Amino acid sequence: MVACWEGRILGVGPRDVVEATLEARGHPLSRFVRLDADGGVVTPGLVDPHTHLLFAGSRERELVLRQQGASYLDILAAGGGILSTVAATRAADDEALAEHGRRWLDEMLGHGVTTIEAKSGYGLDLATELRLLDVAHQLGREGPIDVVPTFLGAHAVPPEFRSRPDGTEAYVRSVIEDQLPGVAAQGRARSCDVFCEEGVFSADQSRRILRAAAAYGMAIRLHADELAPSGGAELAAELGALSADHLHAPSDEGLAAMAAAASGPTPTVATLLPATTWFLMADSAPARRFINAGVPVALGTDFNPGTSPTPNLPLVMTVACLEMKLSPAEALAAVTINAAYAAGVGGEAGSLEPGKLADVVIWGATDVHQLPYWVGADLVDVVVKRGRVVHRRGA
Amino acid sequence: MVACWEGRILGVGPRDVVEATLEARGHPLSRFVRLDADGGVVTPGLVDPHTHLLFAGSRERELVLRQQGASYLDILAAGGGILSTVAATRAADDEALAEHGRRWLDEMLGHGVTTIEAKSGYGLDLATELRLLDVAHQLGREGPIDVVPTFLGAHAVPPEFRSRPDGTEAYVRSVIEDQLPGVAAQGRARSCDVFCEEGVFSADQSRRILRAAAAYGMAIRLHADELAPSGGAELAAELGALSADHLHAPSDEGLAAMAAAASGPTPTVATLLPATTWFLMADSAPARRFINAGVPVALGTDFNPGTSPTPNLPLVMTVACLEMKLSPAEALAAVTINAAYAAGVGGEAGSLEPGKLADVVIWGATDVHQLPYWVGADLVDVVVKRGRVVHRRGA
Repeated sequence: MVACWEGRILGVGPRDVVEATLEARGHPLSRFVRLDADGGVVTPGLVDPHTHLLFAGSRERELVLRQQGASYLDILAAGGGILSTVAATRAADDEALAEHGRRWLDEMLGHGVTTIEAKSGYGLDLATELRLLDVAHQLGREGPIDVVPTFLGAHAVPPEFRSRPDGTEAYVRSVIEDQLPGVAAQGRARSCDVFCEEGVFSADQSRRILRAAAAYGMAIRLHADELAPSGGAELAAELGALSADHLHAPSDEGLAAMAAAASGPTPTVATLLPATTWFLMADSAPARRFINAGVPVALGTDFNPGTSPTPNLPLVMTVACLEMKLSPAEALAAVTINAAYAAGVGGEAGSLEPGKLADVVIWGATDVHQLPYWVGADLVDVVVKRGRVVHRRGA
Repeated sequence: MVACWEGRILGVGPRDVVEATLEARGHPLSRFVRLDADGGVVTPGLVDPHTHLLFAGSRERELVLRQQGASYLDILAAGGGILSTVAATRAADDEALAEHGRRWLDEMLGHGVTTIEAKSGYGLDLATELRLLDVAHQLGREGPIDVVPTFLGAHAVPPEFRSRPDGTEAYVRSVIEDQLPGVAAQGRARSCDVFCEEGVFSADQSRRILRAAAAYGMAIRLHADELAPSGGAELAAELGALSADHLHAPSDEGLAAMAAAASGPTPTVATLLPATTWFLMADSAPARRFINAGVPVALGTDFNPGTSPTPNLPLVMTVACLEMKLSPAEALAAVTINAAYAAGVGGEAGSLEPGKLADVVIWGATDVHQLPYWVGADLVDVVVKRGRVVHRRGA
């Protein structure tokens, strides 16, 4: 039994114990509304710790190009890929972005998600990055899903800098000197992210950006070693990042650094994104190496139009079990408690504990092992967010 | 524009052409109800040509066993796997089976499916097989999804025959002499299927069963070469089967026989089941070899509790694109027109053509390439079955 009051969890455990505790604390049972799980599994609301929620357009044609052998960097180099999304996103007004966001948040809610991290990063100029962060913030205020905005100005080098010989370095300075002060003054971004990758932003450039962000009080996270070992995992551990994400190709040193950090005061979560590597028809990240090394592993959708167009976090649990050999129990921890810490809300969400937000999912399943097992099935019966029923099957 | 009347398609094409044709044929436009696709893609209702819809219980624990290295035949040999489902299914009453069937049919409808094939095969005795076929038939009558029942008595050798030294052969005789006459007399099964596989039923045994079924007027289909080349593809071509299914490991001769049949009077559809191989963490069937050889390829969910617990046919399109390199257009043909022929309803379903059933899906997508692209997303806005709106997003 999970007892909730004013949006928070009051007690969790066998019914008689919880009821006795409530009465003893002066909470008469008559004041509670009962919701019967009817034999279904009850879990914390899921947390998606890595999404690019807000963008315009779609890029379905790239799937066929990839089937024909084009790589991510091929498509990027050809001016397609992320830059086409940047152009469409810059051209979209706030209301179009918000409508898009509501559509996909609504679907995520139906999959049992009650908190997401949402990155900017398809603006790549101060004005658009601020708009993306503000729309993400406003969508979180509308609810019911809590949205944790992240500033990702260093997602790619925008077209207006690419023509310059020192384009990447000039853009890094622009992120640090122009964008970060504006983002910090706006106050929407809870953390700062960088795409730290050979050919995108180097570990040194990433370090400068993230240190500047930390000086503004932002938490930090990285897209790390997605395509090749690029010093991302090492940097995440060095800087005490909340999360290092992707980690398809960490170096041995990077993995060791994250393992060492895991037992220190500022552990970095390894946020793995198996839907992305699956969609890119690539091998997945070495999840079991992280788990065996004691690094906490989270899973995210990486929802974005280029490399992971999926809003379905339970399906990502399945992909993790099949492609990365996570056990169903590991997959569940990876989309709840570990994901909450990766998103920076570990004290508020991700587990059914007294004091935390009353974010609860009742599933049409009788065993947590069934969550990744019924592949792509709609298993969510009821979603409770901050103590309120916000989604019911078929309603 | 798709014009429908009394459950059938009257006309398809540009609006002005269709409207002029309707008026000329004496169908005044005022008598039609308009349904606006609002820019969304319109496709035929999807056809799932391979499901084991009816069973009891679930087998989520086998996923962990497989992660630890157990094979399908390991689990089978240990008395787990299919035999545990047979025991649970025999013990379930008709109403429990029907309730289970309604739950999953309802979900399939939400994924845009309007016709499914549904196999018996978890009874393995005449009484239970007849119950499964009758429940499948009744669920089809309840609608809205059309259900095409298939008799799969030769799905496995049941426990009561396994203890006998000639158990498999004795069970084959029982299928031919005891079950088939009863199934034919009942009249529910539209086709007969056999699990033709080394270690299950040999090609010779399969041939005897399927010829006996054909003599009762049933169409025939096979589980063929799922695990190893077992003569299944050859047999399908030889017998003019509607469909040969799985085909993970066809022999070169089998593939050539199906290619030859493809240009003859009785082509056999290759019904590939990529969710199954993906869920089993195995390589997928050589889809491109079939396509390149001119064999029509269909896709099914293989919905079943052991090897493919997914009701999500659009997700199977995605798996086919990623794991078997089908193009999105090939995947769409494989769940519509080719699937309809595989299910034995090619004259009635699977395409938007005058005279066919008015089974239509309106998608929340602007390009058919988006159907497999938005991975695991709920893209279906409206489902029309036999001319009636039977599903709306969020309703």
